[in-house]
Amino acid sequence: MPRMPDHVTAVPLEKAYRLLNHGPTVLVSSAHGGNTNVMAAAWAMPLDFAPPKVTVVLDKATRTRELVEASGFFALSVPCAGFARQTLAVGTDSAKTMPDKLATYGVTTFDSGHPAAPLVNGCVAWLACRVLREPHNQTAYDLFIGEVVEAWADSRVFSNGHWHFDEAPETLRTLHYVAGGQFYVIGQSLFVDK
Amino acid sequence: MPRMPDHVTAVPLEKAYRLLNHGPTVLVSSAHGGNTNVMAAAWAMPLDFAPPKVTVVLDKATRTRELVEASGFFALSVPCAGFARQTLAVGTDSAKTMPDKLATYGVTTFDSGHPAAPLVNGCVAWLACRVLREPHNQTAYDLFIGEVVEAWADSRVFSNGHWHFDEAPETLRTLHYVAGGQFYVIGQSLFVDK
Repeated sequence: MPRMPDHVTAVPLEKAYRLLNHGPTVLVSSAHGGNTNVMAAAWAMPLDFAPPKVTVVLDKATRTRELVEASGFFALSVPCAGFARQTLAVGTDSAKTMPDKLATYGVTTFDSGHPAAPLVNGCVAWLACRVLREPHNQTAYDLFIGEVVEAWADSRVFSNGHWHFDEAPETLRTLHYVAGGQFYVIGQSLFVDK
Repeated sequence: MPRMPDHVTAVPLEKAYRLLNHGPTVLVSSAHGGNTNVMAAAWAMPLDFAPPKVTVVLDKATRTRELVEASGFFALSVPCAGFARQTLAVGTDSAKTMPDKLATYGVTTFDSGHPAAPLVNGCVAWLACRVLREPHNQTAYDLFIGEVVEAWADSRVFSNGHWHFDEAPETLRTLHYVAGGQFYVIGQSLFVDK
């Protein structure tokens, strides 16, 4: 697995929630026993500030869930407009029926320093997470809770604790999935004062 | 409480998840014992398709949480760019220290048919929810799970199960909060094919 690509910069843990606060669709990855998989998930959110926690819904039918349950780790990678086709593809096809889906769709990972939480190339933010085991939530609701152990972002769009989409290429804006292959791309910044 | 405003149209329950799927910031409202409150929450997501469920994080310090726990109901209203100031305001000030905060900020509600789940005027989608009591999640994580019992959207921006932001006034686009008074407004639609 290659080392960190250019532009990947550490995000302080107390700012990690901001990578998900605006509701982007994410890619969930995990690795165990020599197998790595990546799936898309629109159902993820921050759960706490410090230590930062997140929730994500992982269907029982997915290979990624098996890897998460076996390894106790996952990563959330935040894809951007330039990665929309791959995001849709890994969210549509399962590694259970398409064992080579990552290669087929050109989805590759890089090393986070946490072997069970590989990060997806071509994304703009990443959170490596350790599962906080909650068997009832996992069984009844497919709901997983993770503590963020390390976070990074592409410095072209996130720096000093803030997103800067308006000053970066359009292809780096985050994706917000609806259904049927339709995403919305995040739009303009709006500062308001109560 | 006034009746439904113009443009409010029922959304079939099986499509209700799409109102939150793209990750908008929401307003959480509840009513109990003659008291109504509204707060903002960036941490909400769909949890299931059918019956539709949602999660939302409600801090222990909030008046809204007290009303939700007492009534067993809440509503999620999805605010739009034209309602950004009010969204920030009800997310910043607590009814515990500003008892008249809704009147102060001009935030009003209308009847959903579920007395404990009033809906916020000026928003573009609404989900009335019944709390699925999960005391451990509520206590340990401030995490609430609701089953969506009825849903509506503004027909100018959501119809036939899809958002149509690109054909509607800019002020009706959903808000995606970051921090410090900064939102992003949802942007352009992007259809992709794997």
